[in-house]
Amino acid sequence: MPQVSAGAKNRGRPSKTASASKTSNKTPKKGTVIKLKLKKTITEVKKVLKIDNPSSYYYFFSPGKADGNAQMPDELGGKGANLAEMALAKIAVPPGFTIATSACKLYYENDLVLPIEIDALLEKYVSMIEKETKKKFGDSTNPLLLSVRSGAKFSMPGMMDTILNLGMNDETLEGIAGKSGNMRFALDNYRRFIQMFGDVVLGIERDAFEAVIQKKKVERRVKHDSSLQVSDLGDIIKRYKQIVKRKTGEPFPEDPWQQLRLARDAVFRSWNNPRAISYRRLNNIPPLPGTAINIQAMVFGNMGKKSCTGVGFTRNPSTGEKEFFGEFLVNAQGEDIVAGIRTPEDIKNLKKVMPAVYKQLSTIANSLEKHYRDMQDFEFTVENEKLYMLQTRSGKRTTQAAIKIAVDMVKEKLISKEDALMRIKPMDLDQLLHPTIDPNAKYEVITTGLAASPGAVSGKVYFTSEDITALGAKVKGILVREETNPDDIEGMHSAVGILTSRGGMTSHAAVVARGMGKCCVCGAEAVRVNAAKKRFQVGKLTIREGEIITLNGSTGEVITGEVATVEPELSAEYTEFMSWADEVRTLKVRTNADTPADAVKALKFGAEGIGLCRTEHMFFAEARIPIVQQMIVAETAEERQEALDKLLPMQKKDFKAIFSAMNGLPVTIRTLDPPLHEFLPKKETIELKLEELDKKSDHYEEDFEDLTRLVRRIDELTELNPMLGHRGCRLGIVFPEITEMQVRAILEAACELTKDRKKIFPEIMVPLVGHVNEFKHQKEIIDRIAIEVIAKYKVRNLEYLVGTMIEIPRAALTADEIATEAQFFSFGTNDLTQMAMGFSRDDAGKFLQFYLENGILETDPFVSIDEAGVGQLIKMGFEKGRATNPELKIGICGEHGGDPSSIEFCHKIGLDYVSCSPYRIPIARLSAAQATLKFNGSGGKKKAVKKAVKKTKKEK
Amino acid sequence: MPQVSAGAKNRGRPSKTASASKTSNKTPKKGTVIKLKLKKTITEVKKVLKIDNPSSYYYFFSPGKADGNAQMPDELGGKGANLAEMALAKIAVPPGFTIATSACKLYYENDLVLPIEIDALLEKYVSMIEKETKKKFGDSTNPLLLSVRSGAKFSMPGMMDTILNLGMNDETLEGIAGKSGNMRFALDNYRRFIQMFGDVVLGIERDAFEAVIQKKKVERRVKHDSSLQVSDLGDIIKRYKQIVKRKTGEPFPEDPWQQLRLARDAVFRSWNNPRAISYRRLNNIPPLPGTAINIQAMVFGNMGKKSCTGVGFTRNPSTGEKEFFGEFLVNAQGEDIVAGIRTPEDIKNLKKVMPAVYKQLSTIANSLEKHYRDMQDFEFTVENEKLYMLQTRSGKRTTQAAIKIAVDMVKEKLISKEDALMRIKPMDLDQLLHPTIDPNAKYEVITTGLAASPGAVSGKVYFTSEDITALGAKVKGILVREETNPDDIEGMHSAVGILTSRGGMTSHAAVVARGMGKCCVCGAEAVRVNAAKKRFQVGKLTIREGEIITLNGSTGEVITGEVATVEPELSAEYTEFMSWADEVRTLKVRTNADTPADAVKALKFGAEGIGLCRTEHMFFAEARIPIVQQMIVAETAEERQEALDKLLPMQKKDFKAIFSAMNGLPVTIRTLDPPLHEFLPKKETIELKLEELDKKSDHYEEDFEDLTRLVRRIDELTELNPMLGHRGCRLGIVFPEITEMQVRAILEAACELTKDRKKIFPEIMVPLVGHVNEFKHQKEIIDRIAIEVIAKYKVRNLEYLVGTMIEIPRAALTADEIATEAQFFSFGTNDLTQMAMGFSRDDAGKFLQFYLENGILETDPFVSIDEAGVGQLIKMGFEKGRATNPELKIGICGEHGGDPSSIEFCHKIGLDYVSCSPYRIPIARLSAAQATLKFNGSGGKKKAVKKAVKKTKKEK
Repeated sequence: MPQVSAGAKNRGRPSKTASASKTSNKTPKKGTVIKLKLKKTITEVKKVLKIDNPSSYYYFFSPGKADGNAQMPDELGGKGANLAEMALAKIAVPPGFTIATSACKLYYENDLVLPIEIDALLEKYVSMIEKETKKKFGDSTNPLLLSVRSGAKFSMPGMMDTILNLGMNDETLEGIAGKSGNMRFALDNYRRFIQMFGDVVLGIERDAFEAVIQKKKVERRVKHDSSLQVSDLGDIIKRYKQIVKRKTGEPFPEDPWQQLRLARDAVFRSWNNPRAISYRRLNNIPPLPGTAINIQAMVFGNMGKKSCTGVGFTRNPSTGEKEFFGEFLVNAQGEDIVAGIRTPEDIKNLKKVMPAVYKQLSTIANSLEKHYRDMQDFEFTVENEKLYMLQTRSGKRTTQAAIKIAVDMVKEKLISKEDALMRIKPMDLDQLLHPTIDPNAKYEVITTGLAASPGAVSGKVYFTSEDITALGAKVKGILVREETNPDDIEGMHSAVGILTSRGGMTSHAAVVARGMGKCCVCGAEAVRVNAAKKRFQVGKLTIREGEIITLNGSTGEVITGEVATVEPELSAEYTEFMSWADEVRTLKVRTNADTPADAVKALKFGAEGIGLCRTEHMFFAEARIPIVQQMIVAETAEERQEALDKLLPMQKKDFKAIFSAMNGLPVTIRTLDPPLHEFLPKKETIELKLEELDKKSDHYEEDFEDLTRLVRRIDELTELNPMLGHRGCRLGIVFPEITEMQVRAILEAACELTKDRKKIFPEIMVPLVGHVNEFKHQKEIIDRIAIEVIAKYKVRNLEYLVGTMIEIPRAALTADEIATEAQFFSFGTNDLTQMAMGFSRDDAGKFLQFYLENGILETDPFVSIDEAGVGQLIKMGFEKGRATNPELKIGICGEHGGDPSSIEFCHKIGLDYVSCSPYRIPIARLSAAQATLKFNGSGGKKKAVKKAVKKTKKEK
Repeated sequence: MPQVSAGAKNRGRPSKTASASKTSNKTPKKGTVIKLKLKKTITEVKKVLKIDNPSSYYYFFSPGKADGNAQMPDELGGKGANLAEMALAKIAVPPGFTIATSACKLYYENDLVLPIEIDALLEKYVSMIEKETKKKFGDSTNPLLLSVRSGAKFSMPGMMDTILNLGMNDETLEGIAGKSGNMRFALDNYRRFIQMFGDVVLGIERDAFEAVIQKKKVERRVKHDSSLQVSDLGDIIKRYKQIVKRKTGEPFPEDPWQQLRLARDAVFRSWNNPRAISYRRLNNIPPLPGTAINIQAMVFGNMGKKSCTGVGFTRNPSTGEKEFFGEFLVNAQGEDIVAGIRTPEDIKNLKKVMPAVYKQLSTIANSLEKHYRDMQDFEFTVENEKLYMLQTRSGKRTTQAAIKIAVDMVKEKLISKEDALMRIKPMDLDQLLHPTIDPNAKYEVITTGLAASPGAVSGKVYFTSEDITALGAKVKGILVREETNPDDIEGMHSAVGILTSRGGMTSHAAVVARGMGKCCVCGAEAVRVNAAKKRFQVGKLTIREGEIITLNGSTGEVITGEVATVEPELSAEYTEFMSWADEVRTLKVRTNADTPADAVKALKFGAEGIGLCRTEHMFFAEARIPIVQQMIVAETAEERQEALDKLLPMQKKDFKAIFSAMNGLPVTIRTLDPPLHEFLPKKETIELKLEELDKKSDHYEEDFEDLTRLVRRIDELTELNPMLGHRGCRLGIVFPEITEMQVRAILEAACELTKDRKKIFPEIMVPLVGHVNEFKHQKEIIDRIAIEVIAKYKVRNLEYLVGTMIEIPRAALTADEIATEAQFFSFGTNDLTQMAMGFSRDDAGKFLQFYLENGILETDPFVSIDEAGVGQLIKMGFEKGRATNPELKIGICGEHGGDPSSIEFCHKIGLDYVSCSPYRIPIARLSAAQATLKFNGSGGKKKAVKKAVKKTKKEK
């Protein structure tokens, strides 16, 4: 292959191929670019960018010395920065160097070619490794092999590519075999290298190689790879090379330098592979320059019985317990653990196998945790009883573990309370709040796997990522796989739970599921998955696609059918942790709740009141809907009043129950909001009924008339843009009797409870106000009815507030006028976002996804407040409102009230409270605390702490 | 009737009846309150309000002296102020006094009872009239009769009530008869009084009285009232009194003081009768305290052949010619003219009948015009050759007349150019711009009436106000009546034209139609209207409801069938007047035009460019819609491209024609805006077609597939809130090939014309931008295609701009960001209003009308910019835009661009231009001039004049 091997000599010569690549897609898909990859060697590097200081892109490290350190993850990536830090701490890391993230950026800017000045230093840095290891890259007697690993600033487990054993070829094979005295070992490395290189660099499906090895095992009637003979491995390598030749049209590249450059570029390219992009989007990772690459001397965990490889945590990442936790595999390379192909052993067993190594490892791990002041996740390899640390980083953990670790570390005086509060991502609290299996439920456990990610969930089983993604949000699906890999990321996101039959607690499925807060059971080996036939078997039992199972991610149980679940018991550490958040935060947290059940749940989660009680949900109850419809089809105010009179006692009962549940906390009740047609049946349904009626010989003429009238009313009420139509206070203005009934129900309920010596704080909220006159109109009604009801009940000490939603842009713009009349504002950010941005939430799907994927919008404005636009209106509404009414209470309700970044915004502006759904309350409490710590600095903290002290004193 | 006559003695005694009236409706309907009116006398006046200076509510006047003057219309009403002014000028006005508008306000505040302190002064002021006239009110030998007339600040012709001959009863009858020596005259007055009092005060339908008189005429076989004998009149009066007794349950009130108080209160109440309220709303009359009342000594135009009554104008109110213009009726009272019951004579004939009076009248009229510096509309009565002036005021006139008068008065040095410009209401220019009958058209004139209000119009005939109002805006209706009265006001508003068979140029129909700018033919006596049978006849020809006729309001012709019309020729005075406006204004005026025809029309009206060319209208052409649909149902970009390739030459042709028409003026073209489903047929239509196809045995399977695909695509595209859906630039972003095609069409058209040495200024406008990234995305496409096309045509001197609509609140809020990329902004105030206020224009009908009628909103925000809300966004958008891009061109398009008050707002903010529909251009030009005069003061004027001088010099 002269074309390829000539590469090194012809550096910098521009070629047609490189030039043609200018218009090529910058996010190449696997498979489609095989040829391009083979052709694009250093021979084709274009000199487009002028690089001034090329050595600034390389960072060397070796125990005792390093160019970088832990403070440089932007440039070195997380892995590179920590390798440098460990080297500086004289911990045994295999010597190597990091190519900086900025080089990755240049690689993309330069049309998928690393600028020549940077590329040129590769030999120099490899030679530095050669010096440290006293081996030589590509040498036939004492060859240096390299590992090439990606490593971005933020950990993206399994998302990008790694190549081990690089430098293997027919010549170095002999060197490795000779030097190790172990031909089997040498061949195993060679075999692994071709397979990995073929997969990662050449885009050949893993299965093609896997089939060869499977076939050989069948031939030899052996179960494990390790039982294959030297000659078998030789055969396998030969076949692997044939596969490469067949798939790519070129022989396998034997030149180690070509291997290295191809591998390096493949890692750069993996930064923008679809699953990595998807991962960054799903995890809200901000834009980064790219990934760094760590090129290190290989150390071998597969050199025999005195070698092993493993991963570990300084504390239990699932429970947070302070115990040495992890897994290892004897005579294996790192990929074997992560891929979950062989089920590894508990790290505690290493004590028996290699006690000295175990002691050394636990000492290092402990010091790493102290050094980083956080629980560490580390990788190590033992080569002939010599321990090497391959990586350390802050370990991923379940939220339960994270809280326990944070609280424990405060007690161990390792970190401060504030540090602890800042360490938990508020959204992660969601994991704690999912239901667990009802202890009284009876169910049949069909098998047990590893309890990889806690929670309990029932769902229908599906066997491919595509199938489960296609279901959409409506169906709860459980993804069942032998093992998951990064291609399954979308499917895992869509699933409510994940079950695998292979792999351990640190397998891909386990790590990703914990990150997502999804229930996951791993390595349930009794489960035999047949994805092609869309079914799995446990013993004689067969479960097919669409059948329901239940997973208990906290015990590893797999259960047939659906099982009742209960709300989680929250740990003592959780309670303590949240009390710290409450001490710090200044923003109050209320809940959106329409039922007493919601109210009770929210109180348990720490709600300080109801910020939004939607009265319309009370209208939808089955027994009420006919009365509501009667109200709507009424043609006179009298007819309407008749229906309203029937609704009054029902609403009153609801309000009494909610007030009672909230037990003295403020309750904001919104008057009727949705357009009336939402309460009517579909026109088609009635027309069908009419047809049926027509067929009957004995129908009543009255029924006919009623239905006809209903159809007419539906026609009258139908709107082209209901979002901007006759709804909100516009209803209460045109039909004041509706507002009158609702206010009467609220205040009669409040009066009756007040008479029972309960303390009630009703806040009546008028929706969709755009003009102060609208509010005045409704306030006049509310006050009139209130005076009347309070007089009737002769209640003295009942106070109520009248306020409004600020959800129309005009309301925010004229908040100064509205605030002269209103006692409180609640920003309805859902509607405000719809109108300020002109996005109908129901319809935006057609373009919003496109906008997010193509960077036109950075975040979904329905998830996080669009600060630049909608945020201005909120700020304006707040400032104008307070300007004319300094006493004005101001909060927000709507989805954003439970979104951390939106809560931070609300804190910054100075709102009094946020209101969110019950499950979001802990998230909001922590977000509010973090916002206080972030923006009020130590001053704010002090104030907050003072407040907390005062509170504590008071309680005493 | 002791209960009633006891009144005067029992003043101030509170009664149960008065107290009950507290909750009575404040806008009583005619008929329903008869009993209340009779019962509510001064005996029941409640002392609620304390009035400190009651005489300040009365203003006396008599030739040579007056308490008020012309500068006091707020307090005295227009009529009262001018009566005072004439009295001060020693002009012979019948002595009298005005009760101030503030008394009307008190009347309403005091629950429909005039406060007792004010009421108490009535006798004093009547006695002052008695002193001047040497007659005595209620006297049996020399009785004083009074007229009671309403008179608000703004003229509301015919809207409120008048009572003449007040004081007539069985006793004073003898006095009038004795004093005048004319029993017939006395009886005629008595008859008129009962009829008017019965109608206005007691709420008895006029027809009840009219039937009595008609019956008597039939009995006596006479045609005119004047041919009835003394005994006949006696009978008629007797029957009239019976009617009163029967209808009200009480005898006719003979006590003159009771008559006076009842009449006064009835006039106060008429301020809030439904037709007056409707008139004020339709004419945008701002809130006023109420009407004043003028109580004057009666003078009698019906005293015989040497008496007459008339109305006149100092110039022709229809053409503006400087000629004495008006009508009079010998032996008649004023109501006879206004009601149009007898057709009056031309005022010029008065010269022959009473030359001295004529000379005196014309002298007075001339001096009034000079005094008021405006054309006067006056009323007069001649009683036995003595001339009395009853009223003078600025005369209503057609716009054509208004312009001619203004221009003439400038030339006569009576007023300045600036005065002239401020005198024309911009909206009135609309009258000039309506089409006239095509001079080449052949048509059949069936009769000719008076040319009461210019313009020509075809429409279907309807005979009642209700019928024509019920049609809605879709059907063009012509209201055909014997004569109109104030109850017809709504119907006249709905009609496109009005035809009456009776009444002159100053009849109700004529005055109102001119005010509305509606075509009107009056007094077409050959037309016999049969409203009951819904038809009219002219000779043997019968025209029935729904048949089409054409009216020529400029000639008085009534024509059968529809006739072609042409655009109006604008007068030399108009051209001169508008040139003054152009000299003054600083705001440019562009047009919204989608076709070359519109562009040509707009140029004629003075457009300075196209501010909005909607490309989607080009898509709706019949031949194109299948291709557009092909584009929409396309499932791949290739398929879509195929359809777009077909559309390209079509759009290009359109653009070439529009560019050519605009001849060097800037043309702003907006890329595709509406949601795609607007271009698809209704789903029901296709499903019907599918059913039909199914029935056919020989259909093609392909047709079936095509239709099925169409249905599926409709389903996909259907949106819940299309206004906030996938439209505007969101289309061009998701389907960039659409933008590409449109830009290619625009620029190829521009290049080809540029090559033909034409000067083209294309401005490409991106709709519905909410985020700067959306604009960037589209701008990148536009610039890319532009560079490509311009290179292809090798054109050098073609400049184009790329800008955006600001129509989403977020765009206004982030205008600073968008302006860094955009070269111009155009505020799309329709959408901006919809989103900022949360009103769907299509659906707001359900509550917007209610809001306007109930004072929740003062004006329709879709007609005039809501300055307090939407206006803030416009101001913000303007200021933020200019802050980051000082060169930014900024205009507005949308309905508001042609609305005077919105134009004033645009001027105040500082926009560069407004863009409006072609017919609105003159309105916009004048509005812009008036705004300059109003806000830039003389400084602005000077600058404007300087500019105009410069311009003139340049042209030379």
